[in-house]
Amino acid sequence: MRTMTENRIDRTPLYEEVAGRIIYLVEEGTLKPGERVPSLRDFSRQQQVSLNTVKEAYALLEDRRVLEARPQSGYYVCSRLPEVPREAAPNLPAINPTEVTISEMGRMIMRDVLNPNLIQLGAAIPNPEHLPMEKLSRMLASETRRHKVQSVSYAITPGSEKLRKEIARRMLKAGATLRPDQLIITTGCMEAVFLALRATCHPGDTVAIESPGYYNVLRLIEELGLRALEIPSTPSEGISLEALRYALEQTRVAAAIVIPNFNNPLGAQMPEARKRELVELLESYDIPLIEDDIYGDLAFADERPTVAQSYSRNDSVLLCSSFSKTLAPGYRVGWIAPGRYYDQVERLKLTFNIASAAPTQLAVAEFLANGGYDHHLRATRRIYAQKVALLGEAVGRHFPVGTRVTRPKGGFALWVELPAGCDSMRLYALAIKEGITIAPGPIFSATDKFRNYLRINAAFWSERTEGAIQTLGRLATELLAGRPD
Amino acid sequence: MRTMTENRIDRTPLYEEVAGRIIYLVEEGTLKPGERVPSLRDFSRQQQVSLNTVKEAYALLEDRRVLEARPQSGYYVCSRLPEVPREAAPNLPAINPTEVTISEMGRMIMRDVLNPNLIQLGAAIPNPEHLPMEKLSRMLASETRRHKVQSVSYAITPGSEKLRKEIARRMLKAGATLRPDQLIITTGCMEAVFLALRATCHPGDTVAIESPGYYNVLRLIEELGLRALEIPSTPSEGISLEALRYALEQTRVAAAIVIPNFNNPLGAQMPEARKRELVELLESYDIPLIEDDIYGDLAFADERPTVAQSYSRNDSVLLCSSFSKTLAPGYRVGWIAPGRYYDQVERLKLTFNIASAAPTQLAVAEFLANGGYDHHLRATRRIYAQKVALLGEAVGRHFPVGTRVTRPKGGFALWVELPAGCDSMRLYALAIKEGITIAPGPIFSATDKFRNYLRINAAFWSERTEGAIQTLGRLATELLAGRPD
Repeated sequence: MRTMTENRIDRTPLYEEVAGRIIYLVEEGTLKPGERVPSLRDFSRQQQVSLNTVKEAYALLEDRRVLEARPQSGYYVCSRLPEVPREAAPNLPAINPTEVTISEMGRMIMRDVLNPNLIQLGAAIPNPEHLPMEKLSRMLASETRRHKVQSVSYAITPGSEKLRKEIARRMLKAGATLRPDQLIITTGCMEAVFLALRATCHPGDTVAIESPGYYNVLRLIEELGLRALEIPSTPSEGISLEALRYALEQTRVAAAIVIPNFNNPLGAQMPEARKRELVELLESYDIPLIEDDIYGDLAFADERPTVAQSYSRNDSVLLCSSFSKTLAPGYRVGWIAPGRYYDQVERLKLTFNIASAAPTQLAVAEFLANGGYDHHLRATRRIYAQKVALLGEAVGRHFPVGTRVTRPKGGFALWVELPAGCDSMRLYALAIKEGITIAPGPIFSATDKFRNYLRINAAFWSERTEGAIQTLGRLATELLAGRPD
Repeated sequence: MRTMTENRIDRTPLYEEVAGRIIYLVEEGTLKPGERVPSLRDFSRQQQVSLNTVKEAYALLEDRRVLEARPQSGYYVCSRLPEVPREAAPNLPAINPTEVTISEMGRMIMRDVLNPNLIQLGAAIPNPEHLPMEKLSRMLASETRRHKVQSVSYAITPGSEKLRKEIARRMLKAGATLRPDQLIITTGCMEAVFLALRATCHPGDTVAIESPGYYNVLRLIEELGLRALEIPSTPSEGISLEALRYALEQTRVAAAIVIPNFNNPLGAQMPEARKRELVELLESYDIPLIEDDIYGDLAFADERPTVAQSYSRNDSVLLCSSFSKTLAPGYRVGWIAPGRYYDQVERLKLTFNIASAAPTQLAVAEFLANGGYDHHLRATRRIYAQKVALLGEAVGRHFPVGTRVTRPKGGFALWVELPAGCDSMRLYALAIKEGITIAPGPIFSATDKFRNYLRINAAFWSERTEGAIQTLGRLATELLAGRPD
């Protein structure tokens, strides 16, 4: 049977016309609800169209809930056209986010992604304009056409072998020597970090994490019944090893989560020597390192930096990443190289959802093999470097005196420090009313730090964004001046 | 740039020819490793091809790791062609499965799915031959082409609205009145059950489950630190309400997981009155019911049965399902209607992996709307009814005297009781050597029941399968006779 979607030419396909005649007969009252419609053969003769056309028409009408088939009996007009219950009134976001929990705030920002009327300076999503949509969708189509059985079948964990080979090949550039059989495909990097935490920690355990730190990971730590130990980070060097060393002397830590390359939200790149030192420090305590390298491919410099994993001597790094920032967040293709935790991670993934979607794995594997990924990365990195610079300048122009902003070396997020007393949770509430979403500082901490900070996504920089930055600057100035909100 | 995969005509595309010339120059030694190759412009002039063709050729060579680009400098022959480390020797399955843990056995059966040389009587996977592969892959292609931005963007939880609408519409037939905003899309039904358990239970809690019960759910219960309370089930009526009532009087239970329609592995369909009674019983104790309806659409009768959820009065049923048995397990499109646990489930899903893959959601939504899903189901149900019957007869012909087999009313699995003393774990080991995978009984229990039972997947029934059943019967007979293995 042909599908409706393929008939995009002007002429309506014949079976739709035939279906239209039935709908006419129903609406007109000739065919009553509950009544039997002519058999396929009768109607084919009456309308002088092929039996197949009538079959397609009836199948379509069944989809549309106009007809229903009763086996061994024929087709009937649906006795009552079932109606999908109407959507409930949407839950309006709380007016004053200072009253919502930090966790709820994180969800609000994720949900803002779905609102096409907002200027997206909040969640760290890539700009679809800079994703290779055309080529990816062509590869998705051709790969699923070429591997029909494979694309509908479980890509049972550890996932597509071709994809794991391509990832292993690419990661050589980052200093990681991985065999394909050391990799597990996941539903995005978030799931990789989730599995890593589940494999290394037990409820009640303490996890060291950068501060400020990615809010979804903070929520994950909370959800798993773990405790976050926030280690200060700086935009220049990332996580403070001095603070971490001190903390480890005081506290038992079950795992550390670090983003050594262009961390979120600071954009910090750890110097190579410090990556090595980080791994050595953790290994001396036998603490596994969960390394999130999701931004590693988005270095502004010519060379992509190495991963801390490359300094590991006892396989205690669980390296996590995905193609959500560079190819397609919607494809949910992430991966983890869990080192000596391979068995636990594989078992957990298999138990929690068996496998990730197969078609998008095939498409990403093909893109890595033959899509010009490096070529694409070079262009994207140039664009984001420029946008980050322009956005930083705009913040300088429009924000209150005393505002400071990071100069990240990769990724597409800026971390902004407002003058003390300027509450970014209130700024969020005011900005939403102006059609702008931002990520307020407090969600990057479990201990209510960073009230006067915010993260801005530079990926959507454009002239329209300049206006949004101007608006944010004005609102921040008004907040500082004590404007009631 | 065009992609390699699209050029399926005989003539090699021009840029591949150009790439071939570079490879020739490298192999011949004219271009040495580390050496700069001609600039795009120079090579385009030399070879008298367009600049774009050379660009495509160089990008391809970069993918293949023949060239590397150095920004602001040009392209160079890769100084050392990086090699992907070889695969380690595969972990051979344990020779004697009676020595592997039940949990490890479950994983072995899932991994057997990946072995194309095995006759797949083990895992309950559908036969790709009966999946609408052609139409699905066309819809995947057309939907991602039509919704380019949407297909690469996060389908942020709760997931595609169109898909949720179609599911809500379909579930009316099962007696469930659901609004789209009461549904959450998941990475398969397994993830739905996982989220449901996480939302309703705490470590140490007890979960009532049918016995025999689906092994992946048993592993999930174990993984979450929960205790399984196994309630006997019968092929005719499903879970024993008498036993459940008795158990609830004795023990505090946090949740119950039941498959009222064509449960796994018995294929039992609960009578409507008993579904109602089940819900009332659980509601009287305020115990949430996690209802797995993954086989609901595969009734052999004309009408699909209702879901137990339709009898709920206080929204305490978490209804889970997916399209893994009817459309495409590899698409990983499942869903949950978590009732009053909506907020918890949404939060967990968002935290664990943000969203499920977008393209496969679009394809399934379109298939439900315009793909003739009902038409497809009727054909599939007829096929599986026939295969289940034929397989049951074959078991009768070839298995030892005293063997009993279920007559399920839906789905595609048969539950076989061998004569006492016939160990199905040993049968698994013998069968694997003959190229056949089965699901031995003990994995369907956490308490080492069902030693002389096995589940056989009828989806792959064919003449080849008749031989496999004959082999299984012979092996079982030999085991009974005390053949050493």
